[in-house]
Amino acid sequence: MQTTLQMLKTHPSATGIAPENLAAAIAKLYTCAQACTTCADACLGEKELSSLVPCIRANLDCADACLATGAMLSRVTHSPTDLLRSMLGTCVKACHQCAEECAKHASMHEHCRICSEACRSCEKACRDLMG
Amino acid sequence: MQTTLQMLKTHPSATGIAPENLAAAIAKLYTCAQACTTCADACLGEKELSSLVPCIRANLDCADACLATGAMLSRVTHSPTDLLRSMLGTCVKACHQCAEECAKHASMHEHCRICSEACRSCEKACRDLMG
Amino acid sequence: MQTTLQMLKTHPSATGIAPENLAAAIAKLYTCAQACTTCADACLGEKELSSLVPCIRANLDCADACLATGAMLSRVTHSPTDLLRSMLGTCVKACHQCAEECAKHASMHEHCRICSEACRSCEKACRDLMG
Amino acid sequence: MQTTLQMLKTHPSATGIAPENLAAAIAKLYTCAQACTTCADACLGEKELSSLVPCIRANLDCADACLATGAMLSRVTHSPTDLLRSMLGTCVKACHQCAEECAKHASMHEHCRICSEACRSCEKACRDLMG
Repeated sequence: MQTTLQMLKTHPSATGIAPENLAAAIAKLYTCAQACTTCADACLGEKELSSLVPCIRANLDCADACLATGAMLSRVTHSPTDLLRSMLGTCVKACHQCAEECAKHASMHEHCRICSEACRSCEKACRDLMG
Repeated sequence: MQTTLQMLKTHPSATGIAPENLAAAIAKLYTCAQACTTCADACLGEKELSSLVPCIRANLDCADACLATGAMLSRVTHSPTDLLRSMLGTCVKACHQCAEECAKHASMHEHCRICSEACRSCEKACRDLMG
Repeated sequence: MQTTLQMLKTHPSATGIAPENLAAAIAKLYTCAQACTTCADACLGEKELSSLVPCIRANLDCADACLATGAMLSRVTHSPTDLLRSMLGTCVKACHQCAEECAKHASMHEHCRICSEACRSCEKACRDLMG
Repeated sequence: MQTTLQMLKTHPSATGIAPENLAAAIAKLYTCAQACTTCADACLGEKELSSLVPCIRANLDCADACLATGAMLSRVTHSPTDLLRSMLGTCVKACHQCAEECAKHASMHEHCRICSEACRSCEKACRDLMG
């Protein structure tokens, strides 16, 4: 997050969002995308795999949504647009769905518990940016 | 699109969307993502580059939105969800914004004209899937 | 592929690769990425899921490699670089691995057979571009 | 990186790479992808834009390579494969090229200086994993 914050602060265009808030949200988006990618792979290695299929699908959707949102937010110049707001709203839904799905398996699989928390944290950051 | 259609038809789970419509939309999403990626690079090679900056930014946002939407649609099992509908709505906005921006330069740059058409075609396909 | 070819032909910078060959390879890369994304999801819906885990992992790796390669090739100006050659070589490996893995299940699952063919076709196109 | 490390440690399959080293590399890959995405956008906002075109192109290639590598590394089960080694080698080249290009503008643009450092750090982490 330190590198992201420095990048945002040295960007020539001002953004409507405080760089600290933006950097925090971007960090959570990439962290969540990474956690979801590993959670899908970890689920594929579990014995009761068939019960984890909805979790894997939610993981993959969430990772895609987070990366697209993270990239758009990283192009900071268009902060208050309608498109960005819509992308954030989509990401909120993807994170929410994945957090709920992972939470069902949190007591059995630590990776689902940790991933669920990463999703919730990312969901909140996206909601906050939507204002 | 032929490969995509075959993939969808041999998927074990039925989807709420007709495979032909789904395959057509997916093809347009990847085509649009590709066109936007090349359009951004082509704009970077033009002489009056500074006037094309908003076009390049719209290209990059649109490519990201199209790839995320294309991936979600390719995981066909969750067709009628709220998340997918939201992602399609976001992609409609990204395509619309990029089509408008490219259209401003269509008379001067053929790549902007072609990209604008790819965006409009993709925007329509996403709208149609939203029902 | 028609849109891609038009985009490449109207790009202001010449490329070291004939646009027809480049467009054909790019089309195969996006088609392969899409097929792998659907094949992973289709495998997740099959009954003998546990035997398909290596296939799903190969699908996900291959989709990521194809999209990164497709994006780099779509920024046509840097065609003959060392980086592009290396990316193509990586993509050849990803496609080869996924084609082999899918082929093991081709007699049981049509989606694996079709995906395997898409991977082989993409592998060949990448090899051809490497020269 | 804390979340990534926890995810890797709770993954059911052992990996050939120490989780601490893997988590550090993954963190650098996503950080570098993010920095490159913002650097490209920041360059687009600078006055002497035409001199920054090679930097923007290197940024975009590097971001794509880092995300593909980060995703493959996040699917930790296949650590010592030939494919992963090849992807890491490609990413080393992408990071190296972007670091060199950004370094040319580091004295004039802080974002290029910071991005160059993120690329060098990521290049080193990928080299170490190949080791």
